[in-house]
Amino acid sequence: MTRILLTGSAGFVGSHLTERFLAEGHEVVGVDNYISGQRDNTALFLDHPRFRFIEADVSRAIPDPGGQLDWVMHFASPASPPHYQQFPIETLMVGAQGTQNGLDLARAHGAKFFLASTSEVYGDPLVHPQPESYWGHVNPNGLRSCYDEAKRYAEAITMAYHRHHGVDTRIIRIFNTYGPRMRPDDGRVITNFVHQALRGEALTVYGDGSQTRSFQYIDDLVEGIVRLMGVEEHEPVNLGNPVEFTMLELVDVLQQVLARPLPTRQEPIPHDDPRQRKPDIARAYDLLGWTPVVPLHDGLRRTIAAVPAEAASTPA
Amino acid sequence: MTRILLTGSAGFVGSHLTERFLAEGHEVVGVDNYISGQRDNTALFLDHPRFRFIEADVSRAIPDPGGQLDWVMHFASPASPPHYQQFPIETLMVGAQGTQNGLDLARAHGAKFFLASTSEVYGDPLVHPQPESYWGHVNPNGLRSCYDEAKRYAEAITMAYHRHHGVDTRIIRIFNTYGPRMRPDDGRVITNFVHQALRGEALTVYGDGSQTRSFQYIDDLVEGIVRLMGVEEHEPVNLGNPVEFTMLELVDVLQQVLARPLPTRQEPIPHDDPRQRKPDIARAYDLLGWTPVVPLHDGLRRTIAAVPAEAASTPA
Repeated sequence: MTRILLTGSAGFVGSHLTERFLAEGHEVVGVDNYISGQRDNTALFLDHPRFRFIEADVSRAIPDPGGQLDWVMHFASPASPPHYQQFPIETLMVGAQGTQNGLDLARAHGAKFFLASTSEVYGDPLVHPQPESYWGHVNPNGLRSCYDEAKRYAEAITMAYHRHHGVDTRIIRIFNTYGPRMRPDDGRVITNFVHQALRGEALTVYGDGSQTRSFQYIDDLVEGIVRLMGVEEHEPVNLGNPVEFTMLELVDVLQQVLARPLPTRQEPIPHDDPRQRKPDIARAYDLLGWTPVVPLHDGLRRTIAAVPAEAASTPA
Repeated sequence: MTRILLTGSAGFVGSHLTERFLAEGHEVVGVDNYISGQRDNTALFLDHPRFRFIEADVSRAIPDPGGQLDWVMHFASPASPPHYQQFPIETLMVGAQGTQNGLDLARAHGAKFFLASTSEVYGDPLVHPQPESYWGHVNPNGLRSCYDEAKRYAEAITMAYHRHHGVDTRIIRIFNTYGPRMRPDDGRVITNFVHQALRGEALTVYGDGSQTRSFQYIDDLVEGIVRLMGVEEHEPVNLGNPVEFTMLELVDVLQQVLARPLPTRQEPIPHDDPRQRKPDIARAYDLLGWTPVVPLHDGLRRTIAAVPAEAASTPA
């Protein structure tokens, strides 16, 4: 049995990882302070005999749960623009102090350390798609820098602990991911569209809807994470779905899934519209034999099926 | 009278700032842990009635000296490649926790905060010269990332405290600077050349010596810092000398200054040779009426005059 301490266990990705690890027979110590995680995600597992939860701010300290630890996995951080811009200093701290506390805990236990980094380290990329060797294009002191620079710092200190202290580390860069248990207020397009559609509202399309995004279903991400835990690779690995959709194509797929026409409403593109990013996933394929396998319509169907009935029927 | 807490007071730049502030009638509380600072630099001022020194690691905590504080100036950090690569984790911490401790202290005192950032936030730049609006080209997890990403993070958290907590902040990006009291082992070309010349050794030229550097004399930097303290500007400001010299031209100037021929010895360019950077100083000129005024031969003369006799005569 593997014993895993997982920060951000009450977050979207954290909750799916917890589910997968418990299903595989591992023991999970979840840690979260609910700054952007959801208590409902902890409640899902509280009765499980191999799950234990500690409410703590990992930027201050990660309580040592005692006993053996095989992995410290650092997934705690606000991750959607509205959240990290609401909590810029907390976001910076969980990338710096939070990551270092995780590295120190891993080191103390002789555990491996797994960092959830992000495609935002590529910033507003000048190279498409982005391979891991691309150094990115990030404004170090702009409004998004609280997240982008925190994650770049997190990668830097993770590699420093690996090189200097010999900690056995992994780094993934997560691209746009969706699925059940995303926060309804995360501000990203799939969440917005799904909730607008279920409430019978027009879908908000910014600009002419020709801008593209790529969307990774959560189960594909979790599979990539689990596979990376099984190999020794310290350089960052992209995990994302390279298939791009325009916003209007996304509306189409959602219409097919819901089997009804969905009216749209056009708004001007916001100044700070999220940037186009598309992963180059050759490294993940070569290392792990991994590619995303869940098509968008399947992932959307599962995401919609998981929306609680009250959220689907209550007008905003 | 202005009361200034200065981290890194025993460093090269810190010692010159201390000297200038004391000369202007200010009070200085110097803080250093001597990881790369020098005790001799503290000793210079210990008898001064307006200087007080606290030995402390500012990444852990900055002791509150009590009383009024007008400025917290954060200049602590290993800054030369051999030093920050010897202390990668300390370098990362002084950029993150050290900067935040300084910001918290400034906030608690209603003091202004001044961050010493670096031209290394531009990394291996693809734009020459570099204006402040250039986002840089930095490998987030390479060997230099412990310094580059620490400083980018430091800028990000400084701007976050400014935007979110209203702290009155300044950020400078310091380009290659030289002068008296540099550590003889700092590994940079002027230090190497000066000490080799004074010891009667051949000057080590990497490659064909056609690569360029720009060199700012310390007094010019200090003047820019003092002027920036007098205006309200929160965006980063480059401070550096845009005049470029090839390594062979630098040898020439040094020969003129020492009035004797200096033999050179060629070595292959190291894999990790410092990158060419040249500041665009239009912002500093527009804001502060500042430009560097000390020519290289003058600065070299003063630097050489300050080398202690024993360092000049002892073979390495």
